[in-house]
Amino acid sequence: MAHKVGVVGFRGYSGAELVRILARHAHFEPVLVEHRKDVEDHSARRDRLARIPCTPEAIRGEGLAGVFLATPADVSMDLAPWMLEAGAKVVDLSGAFRLRTPETYWRWYKEEQTQPALLAEAAYGLPEFCRERIRTARLVANPGCYPTAANLAIKPLVEAAVVDRKAGIVCDAKSGVSGAGRKPSLKTSFCEVTGNFSAYSILDHRHVPEVLLTSGLQESEFSFTAHLLPLARGILETIYFRTSVSRPEDLIEVYAKRYAGEPFVRIYEAGHVPDLRAVERTNYCDIGVKLDAATGRAVVVSAIDNLVKGAAGQAIQNMNLVLGCAETEGLL
Amino acid sequence: MAHKVGVVGFRGYSGAELVRILARHAHFEPVLVEHRKDVEDHSARRDRLARIPCTPEAIRGEGLAGVFLATPADVSMDLAPWMLEAGAKVVDLSGAFRLRTPETYWRWYKEEQTQPALLAEAAYGLPEFCRERIRTARLVANPGCYPTAANLAIKPLVEAAVVDRKAGIVCDAKSGVSGAGRKPSLKTSFCEVTGNFSAYSILDHRHVPEVLLTSGLQESEFSFTAHLLPLARGILETIYFRTSVSRPEDLIEVYAKRYAGEPFVRIYEAGHVPDLRAVERTNYCDIGVKLDAATGRAVVVSAIDNLVKGAAGQAIQNMNLVLGCAETEGLL
Amino acid sequence: MAHKVGVVGFRGYSGAELVRILARHAHFEPVLVEHRKDVEDHSARRDRLARIPCTPEAIRGEGLAGVFLATPADVSMDLAPWMLEAGAKVVDLSGAFRLRTPETYWRWYKEEQTQPALLAEAAYGLPEFCRERIRTARLVANPGCYPTAANLAIKPLVEAAVVDRKAGIVCDAKSGVSGAGRKPSLKTSFCEVTGNFSAYSILDHRHVPEVLLTSGLQESEFSFTAHLLPLARGILETIYFRTSVSRPEDLIEVYAKRYAGEPFVRIYEAGHVPDLRAVERTNYCDIGVKLDAATGRAVVVSAIDNLVKGAAGQAIQNMNLVLGCAETEGLL
Amino acid sequence: MAHKVGVVGFRGYSGAELVRILARHAHFEPVLVEHRKDVEDHSARRDRLARIPCTPEAIRGEGLAGVFLATPADVSMDLAPWMLEAGAKVVDLSGAFRLRTPETYWRWYKEEQTQPALLAEAAYGLPEFCRERIRTARLVANPGCYPTAANLAIKPLVEAAVVDRKAGIVCDAKSGVSGAGRKPSLKTSFCEVTGNFSAYSILDHRHVPEVLLTSGLQESEFSFTAHLLPLARGILETIYFRTSVSRPEDLIEVYAKRYAGEPFVRIYEAGHVPDLRAVERTNYCDIGVKLDAATGRAVVVSAIDNLVKGAAGQAIQNMNLVLGCAETEGLL
Repeated sequence: MAHKVGVVGFRGYSGAELVRILARHAHFEPVLVEHRKDVEDHSARRDRLARIPCTPEAIRGEGLAGVFLATPADVSMDLAPWMLEAGAKVVDLSGAFRLRTPETYWRWYKEEQTQPALLAEAAYGLPEFCRERIRTARLVANPGCYPTAANLAIKPLVEAAVVDRKAGIVCDAKSGVSGAGRKPSLKTSFCEVTGNFSAYSILDHRHVPEVLLTSGLQESEFSFTAHLLPLARGILETIYFRTSVSRPEDLIEVYAKRYAGEPFVRIYEAGHVPDLRAVERTNYCDIGVKLDAATGRAVVVSAIDNLVKGAAGQAIQNMNLVLGCAETEGLL
Repeated sequence: MAHKVGVVGFRGYSGAELVRILARHAHFEPVLVEHRKDVEDHSARRDRLARIPCTPEAIRGEGLAGVFLATPADVSMDLAPWMLEAGAKVVDLSGAFRLRTPETYWRWYKEEQTQPALLAEAAYGLPEFCRERIRTARLVANPGCYPTAANLAIKPLVEAAVVDRKAGIVCDAKSGVSGAGRKPSLKTSFCEVTGNFSAYSILDHRHVPEVLLTSGLQESEFSFTAHLLPLARGILETIYFRTSVSRPEDLIEVYAKRYAGEPFVRIYEAGHVPDLRAVERTNYCDIGVKLDAATGRAVVVSAIDNLVKGAAGQAIQNMNLVLGCAETEGLL
Repeated sequence: MAHKVGVVGFRGYSGAELVRILARHAHFEPVLVEHRKDVEDHSARRDRLARIPCTPEAIRGEGLAGVFLATPADVSMDLAPWMLEAGAKVVDLSGAFRLRTPETYWRWYKEEQTQPALLAEAAYGLPEFCRERIRTARLVANPGCYPTAANLAIKPLVEAAVVDRKAGIVCDAKSGVSGAGRKPSLKTSFCEVTGNFSAYSILDHRHVPEVLLTSGLQESEFSFTAHLLPLARGILETIYFRTSVSRPEDLIEVYAKRYAGEPFVRIYEAGHVPDLRAVERTNYCDIGVKLDAATGRAVVVSAIDNLVKGAAGQAIQNMNLVLGCAETEGLL
Repeated sequence: MAHKVGVVGFRGYSGAELVRILARHAHFEPVLVEHRKDVEDHSARRDRLARIPCTPEAIRGEGLAGVFLATPADVSMDLAPWMLEAGAKVVDLSGAFRLRTPETYWRWYKEEQTQPALLAEAAYGLPEFCRERIRTARLVANPGCYPTAANLAIKPLVEAAVVDRKAGIVCDAKSGVSGAGRKPSLKTSFCEVTGNFSAYSILDHRHVPEVLLTSGLQESEFSFTAHLLPLARGILETIYFRTSVSRPEDLIEVYAKRYAGEPFVRIYEAGHVPDLRAVERTNYCDIGVKLDAATGRAVVVSAIDNLVKGAAGQAIQNMNLVLGCAETEGLL
């Protein structure tokens, strides 16, 4: 049996990716929800899909079981309350509901979180760590792209206490341009990006608190810098820390245990790390380890496709959980 | 002795290229003329240059001998009249003064040409064919990027009557993204362009009339399509025609005679054609020939850097002529 | 019921694409046939697939119903005879069996065609024009990537006699780098290709005779130049000709009639042409038309993914026909 | 007065860059020294330069004052001894003479250093720290590209004791593909690199010992990972450490003092860091700082053009010192 699921913001890169993946989903039937024409629309591919206006009547009338919000945070805060009231479960891809308090939200986003009750209610949508909570949630905050790659790599190490937290963890993150969205800007225009590479949001990226909340690290223990790669999609994070374990296999074992049975996390053999190609257009997070045993210095490389496991793929994984489908449906 | 020359629109790609080239010009001292802050400005490189406002008093007060207008056509039509009155020679990089009549301008640009007297007065700035006229001009219309590569390749063949005009000439043109300017738009944003290639303005590009006016071809004899390459700079045009000559050397000879002594046109030996790398960051137009003698089918490949010979470099070549400097100054 | 199908040359780009597409084919079970380790192998994805040596015993023992040869032409000529004798149908992706006579082969490939009997027997694998012949063939010569895009665009126009053949047809073709294969060479190395664009095989590309044979054009009527785009995959061809029809809709009608019911050819509405993105990772050939009625000048833009409709996808389409599967299986 | 200087390995990327820069050098006259035709040669630009064979007689006969070795390390070890004997000063761009002992060389390069006497004699060519030694040297070991960017950023901080060495320094380095040389390989072929990004030589890159030797850090204090960017030229390093200073201006002040008067190091104002574009085709190393005062976490971004300050430009800077020219000649 098929659930009708709405996509708001289907013209953006995450929204378009949702539509692309939903096309091969056996149990979800996508419905385009027309919110604003803020981005030009080229694609003919979507012409055959049903379209409805973004109103409570239409959501209810169409009988949408779920709605994906691929919208800016302020739009998500406007839409989520009445979407839920109209009976749809919501997976929100923005940052609106990812943090725990309006104060933290204000600190990192410099904007007001206008829906504190929903903020408190929302489940954080990282299935590998919050699966049961997600299954029963009405509202899921889909994680940021950078925190997805970071937390999947870091949290098992923190839980297993194999990281020297006092020495600190460095996460040097690089992302493709689609992570900045589809709205034209000088920073993402072709001539500025091609042949170039740059660091941004050094030590103060708004995705940092998601890593702290999930991993349990203190801000003083975690240094994060984002970079813009001259390519369209993919995130690769190089994570540095000190460890007391003496063999790379020991770290791999930590991951293997934690992720046994997980369908979307792949751990590499010692001596191998993923590149972006390995995860392109997949919902996998690939993780590899390098260790210098003599000095205890360790490096972990974590890679995802920012539009899939970092956005649309994980959102569908969450909606699968919320609506009771097989978690991997449409994603393998 | 140095001439002060102003640059209006120095934040755009052509304007920035003007500033870059002028830095090594022995006789021109660049002055930035602040018109509008329509494009964000990142560069620190220009911080040491003099800046003046875009007013007749400042132009006159600074004693500018010449001004480059790297501005949209409507802005150029506004500025050119009083710039000339203020005593500066003007080289305009827009399309405002390239055609001969307001009617032709209207047909191709779909906008009014508001300065018909200056349109009539302006010299067309293709030095290889209009050198003497340029030397005595007050106002030079710098040619379009596509027509520069096209006319340098086609006009000698038409003049020498070695082209079967009845069968028609095809010019398949490909350009880097900087040709579209620096203003952000979805069409020139990184994710849309990378890994993509597209045709545009098929048979009706506004640069076509420049080729017809200069080469003498009729519209029915000339088919032109523009394409957008996933790279920042360069134009390569592949030109097809039928010829009565029987050896590639005969065509090469036509070019060699026409361009003897020309500093910026390089003709390749038979069997060789230029790629974009050959002309990158140079003021050269490189031309190569292929001929199938048995059937009379010929192909000419013409390559320039769209920001140099196709814009800023040729503009400086023209200003050199206008202000009596050596034509190659700053350009070799 | 599943057929076992072998892939020889699975490490090359076309071979890897075959494996990728076959993973979602309901009726083919891919078997890797180890021929030579001429290209390094990075991919872990193929590790779970069965592997057999490239011998008659293994082919027969494994019971392969079909074999894809994603190998150089000389290797294909070596393998095809005994593969067929071992009972497998063969779809060959090289140029070995595409032309009609050893003499033509010698002229364009400068190599001997050592299997003239098979050359005579092979079906040319362009399903839109040779479907019935392919269904009963033992050996299918999968078309070249350039001729696929060219013939699908040109042949209907020639058949409908709407092209002025005397004035000639120009096909300006641009391809991504994967078309050159996976073997490292200076010409396809990153630093040489990025930011560059070049023409090659001007008027003498070895794919030309395929266009002549299929479309019925004479060599003197057809001018073809290949170009290398700085991107990985895709072919876009801009085709120029003169026509007596007076509206673009007339040309579109020619295509619409010819391709009614064809699953993999899409004709655009008047005023629209495809870009590479439209066909990326699909088996479609997209075709758009532009016409200047006043002068009879016409342009057709034809786009495919060179690794799919230009190689692996079309090969699977052919194998589907040969082995009696639905023609679109695995390809939509 | 002009010195004749030879370039061995002029077909590689560093060698070609040497030739390009030398073309605008007022006092050096480049001579191409033909060693081996190991890389194909496309360029016509070099055709007008003098060429001599790679023999002692030719070096002496031509009267070369200096020779640049843009050759692999084993070739440099072969050539340097007799080049010096033939009277030429040598700047070697390989790793052959950068370390201090044959043992260290063996550990990191896994090859024998066959010229231990020259290894002991060679000056390390980082002018900002070894200027006086270089002036009187016969043989200069031009630094590696990664260590140039790393040492210029790290050494002043270590000297000023503002780094918490116990917590360790992380250097996450990203390089363009030209750093891998011009010899074709699968790893540097276009289709493998475009749209991809990968880490390599994690914690064991052969450039690490250069950083340790120059900066005085212990191996246990320094974690280094190299990455391959999908672009041709440039290195950007993001460097993480803990510091006791409380304002970014304090770190900037450390750099400002150390690099006062240095022509090729530019320090950014607080809150700004360089991108690759800022240093493209220049001999500058640009450095910017970010500090979180509350926690003592600091990040420094260091950027160079790997072919200029990371290879050919710095080599010319060194040769200028060795032959008594102005240090900046040809480089501004």
